[in-house]
Amino acid sequence: MKEKVKRARVLIESEDRMGLVYRVSKVFYENSLNIDSNREFVDKETGRFFMRSVVSGEFEVAGLQRELLEAVPEDASVRVVIPGRKKIVLMATKESHALGDILIRYADGELDADIEAVIANRDTLSSLVERFGIPFIHISAEGLEREEHERRVLAELKRYEPDYIVLAKYMRILTPSFVSSYPGKIINIHHSFLPAFIGANPYRQAYERGVKIIGATAHFVTDDLDEGPIIAQDVIPVNHRYDWRDMQRAGRDVEKIVLSRALNLVLNDRVFVYGNKTVVF
Amino acid sequence: MKEKVKRARVLIESEDRMGLVYRVSKVFYENSLNIDSNREFVDKETGRFFMRSVVSGEFEVAGLQRELLEAVPEDASVRVVIPGRKKIVLMATKESHALGDILIRYADGELDADIEAVIANRDTLSSLVERFGIPFIHISAEGLEREEHERRVLAELKRYEPDYIVLAKYMRILTPSFVSSYPGKIINIHHSFLPAFIGANPYRQAYERGVKIIGATAHFVTDDLDEGPIIAQDVIPVNHRYDWRDMQRAGRDVEKIVLSRALNLVLNDRVFVYGNKTVVF
Amino acid sequence: MKEKVKRARVLIESEDRMGLVYRVSKVFYENSLNIDSNREFVDKETGRFFMRSVVSGEFEVAGLQRELLEAVPEDASVRVVIPGRKKIVLMATKESHALGDILIRYADGELDADIEAVIANRDTLSSLVERFGIPFIHISAEGLEREEHERRVLAELKRYEPDYIVLAKYMRILTPSFVSSYPGKIINIHHSFLPAFIGANPYRQAYERGVKIIGATAHFVTDDLDEGPIIAQDVIPVNHRYDWRDMQRAGRDVEKIVLSRALNLVLNDRVFVYGNKTVVF
Amino acid sequence: MKEKVKRARVLIESEDRMGLVYRVSKVFYENSLNIDSNREFVDKETGRFFMRSVVSGEFEVAGLQRELLEAVPEDASVRVVIPGRKKIVLMATKESHALGDILIRYADGELDADIEAVIANRDTLSSLVERFGIPFIHISAEGLEREEHERRVLAELKRYEPDYIVLAKYMRILTPSFVSSYPGKIINIHHSFLPAFIGANPYRQAYERGVKIIGATAHFVTDDLDEGPIIAQDVIPVNHRYDWRDMQRAGRDVEKIVLSRALNLVLNDRVFVYGNKTVVF
Repeated sequence: MKEKVKRARVLIESEDRMGLVYRVSKVFYENSLNIDSNREFVDKETGRFFMRSVVSGEFEVAGLQRELLEAVPEDASVRVVIPGRKKIVLMATKESHALGDILIRYADGELDADIEAVIANRDTLSSLVERFGIPFIHISAEGLEREEHERRVLAELKRYEPDYIVLAKYMRILTPSFVSSYPGKIINIHHSFLPAFIGANPYRQAYERGVKIIGATAHFVTDDLDEGPIIAQDVIPVNHRYDWRDMQRAGRDVEKIVLSRALNLVLNDRVFVYGNKTVVF
Repeated sequence: MKEKVKRARVLIESEDRMGLVYRVSKVFYENSLNIDSNREFVDKETGRFFMRSVVSGEFEVAGLQRELLEAVPEDASVRVVIPGRKKIVLMATKESHALGDILIRYADGELDADIEAVIANRDTLSSLVERFGIPFIHISAEGLEREEHERRVLAELKRYEPDYIVLAKYMRILTPSFVSSYPGKIINIHHSFLPAFIGANPYRQAYERGVKIIGATAHFVTDDLDEGPIIAQDVIPVNHRYDWRDMQRAGRDVEKIVLSRALNLVLNDRVFVYGNKTVVF
Repeated sequence: MKEKVKRARVLIESEDRMGLVYRVSKVFYENSLNIDSNREFVDKETGRFFMRSVVSGEFEVAGLQRELLEAVPEDASVRVVIPGRKKIVLMATKESHALGDILIRYADGELDADIEAVIANRDTLSSLVERFGIPFIHISAEGLEREEHERRVLAELKRYEPDYIVLAKYMRILTPSFVSSYPGKIINIHHSFLPAFIGANPYRQAYERGVKIIGATAHFVTDDLDEGPIIAQDVIPVNHRYDWRDMQRAGRDVEKIVLSRALNLVLNDRVFVYGNKTVVF
Repeated sequence: MKEKVKRARVLIESEDRMGLVYRVSKVFYENSLNIDSNREFVDKETGRFFMRSVVSGEFEVAGLQRELLEAVPEDASVRVVIPGRKKIVLMATKESHALGDILIRYADGELDADIEAVIANRDTLSSLVERFGIPFIHISAEGLEREEHERRVLAELKRYEPDYIVLAKYMRILTPSFVSSYPGKIINIHHSFLPAFIGANPYRQAYERGVKIIGATAHFVTDDLDEGPIIAQDVIPVNHRYDWRDMQRAGRDVEKIVLSRALNLVLNDRVFVYGNKTVVF
């Protein structure tokens, strides 16, 4: 059956090879597709090639993908993504700033996503979430082994088949087993300017160290705690008058803005992950 | 005579047309050129297409340019630039921060340019400039009509045939006639976050207005005073404890960094001008 | 009747005079008050003195104020403020980002204020506001003279006796008569880095101008449109790939953060207004 | 002998005690001194009190200090500093950006200091330094034990009796013995956003980690490498297109601005060190 669409994001990752752009743009040309925007990057160290084109015209997704796959090296990855709302599930604990920022953007129609549910290990945020007409699923970890708790969370997640899981200040560490169920699909906001102050209470650490700037890092979650590919970072200045709670308060503004920025980048298919890094177009 | 080179910057500006990227990359491919980096942009409002590719391989500049011109629409502009040191002349008055920053970078080998001379309407900076082994040309404006002064400056400039003229806090307004002698070739640092506080003593104006941030703008000079295409901007925070001289002092750091950043962008052929705007790749 | 309290913010504005700090700190000392924090500023141009002290101990507000008034010059203003929740009313039109950010902070307990109501000239935001259990008052301006509309808004405001009115993207211009009803009490977020791009659609203006940075300004509202004393400003970088709607979208993040930051400063009695400027401690 | 002066910076560090501000301002008042600016800070965790007042009038330094010492607790430190040019020695290796930035500010009269000499372990920068009429002392470390090299450097330093030593990209690690010769007097610029990426080639580390922001930290040198009290920090955004050399190049701009900012703060006696932190007024 033919599926005619108007616009697609073409995402290619490949070994770099002479003529790649030529071959890909030839496919676009022969399909009478307009290139609305186009960005490429070659990582010199690894020889990897990345390309994100937004094309418009009349085409079949499967057919276009087939033609592109023939144009690129064998090991290459080609995705043809029709822009549209992705499915996300948010996970939280009890802090509302990052979660609330996403909810407001959602209510505002700013997010190109449907929030299927919010899963939390505390029930603090239930009334906030429910105000937005979103299912709030409380899965307490009290008295449960970590594996059992994660098993229950995974069971809920499975029902929603989310494209991405957003940890909006979810304060529990995920096991490698959990992470491997959603590889490259879990986005976290780290309350620090990575790689600084890994671990518990980074604001306390930042305060003790007397820093003059604090930051936040949005990253994909991998097995290494706080060590996944960085999507976005930002900072704000602080000074000696900030105690660690003031730093935390100031940090919240950076955290929420950085997480929402990262989420929008991911929802717009602007982020390629390779090794422990990202290309952000 | 054949002129074989290894690397070139290909700069194309054109009406947007389907197949443009295809045709250009076909030329690269048929000449066995590697694309080291490639950036494109289409301005939706005006339908203009911009492309900057860095290619490497064996080729003749003239031949490559000819082939590219055949591949693009008739009105398109195609430049094939061999990376290399451009010739610049700096113009200054008496403030040393922006000039000095460029001189230090020059001494450091950071600038891909030769500073042919510094032309100033005061002699305050002569010893600083001469320390760097650069000709300092003092052309006083005292008792001269504006046109006569500019005539003398132009006469000196002519000797050096500069690719770009950098106004490093040159505090005189240039006439349209002067500007038209070097269209798109004169870079200025404006001591304000344009379009705010146009005209004399913007720091005084900023102080009076009680702003909490001050900025600087590097732009190409056009007939409209302080209104040319913006290349780079940046800001720093200030507060009520800053009087206007403090703001000026703080502003100097932004001014020099922004001007040097803009200069490097221009020297690397990363800036396209169209209408009153720039595309900065 | 004695009103014993533990902590107060002492806010003094005065002509500068030798011995002022001495006389004020003498009052604190003689009342056995601890100075938890203390900030002073003298504006050299106007000779105005500003002081904000947080003191703790046992005291009567009225008595302390009386003693302080005796210690300072006759024209001085002395306020002894017991920290506590202020009453605010928000005004909005149809954009939710600034309003939503305040609501989330409110729900989070971050604001030292009670939001008495949201007044809007459209009903777009009613469901969002009501989710937070806050009265939403829709006063349409359709078919009404400006004065009549404002009369109705003022009538509602009067019921709440707000300490501050926050214009969270309220898109109507207030008349001098309205403003004079709440002098120094109305906070606005201007969608631009003042003084640039005053008036309608500043993002469109910023786009046309090709700026590389956009900003937002929170300020007190005075009779001069967009010209009141600035409380806070911030910026974010943009580039040629942003059309004006992208700039607007990016600008929203700055707008909401700047407005909330300004609101918190005001609620903490950290902002003095003098002339067309602010001192922000 | 009487030493009458017009203006002084009074710097007090003490255990916090009720009435401190009162007692100190009483001394000012009784000496008919104007307070031009005044900043205080109490660190709640440690109960330390910091005060920096700029006073003007007629007074003797020794007499004023004596009176102030009587007004404060026994363990307090009181310094009465007459504003004036401090003596500094710069130390460098072969990179010119941080050194050059200081030299240009020096030539410009912006620094309230005399640069007595530049000491370097390479001779790369000799011609740059000598252009500014400043003694360049090359003390090669080739074939020398660390202690012997430092002994020679210390011998030179001794001749100049510097108030501060500025490590402007001095790429050798100082021994605790060296540091203890100038406690709280050595300022370093760390090519990273501390505490991240301590040690060799932080730009390489930052690149490997795929960070989106890089920074620089100016700090006092203590025995712990890269761990002294932070004076100033700043950052700039980078992205995937930066290889580590690009990051290094971009980082230089932050490094030099941050170091010069820290130096100016120190020269203006605005920095108190306590424990491993600073109070920066």
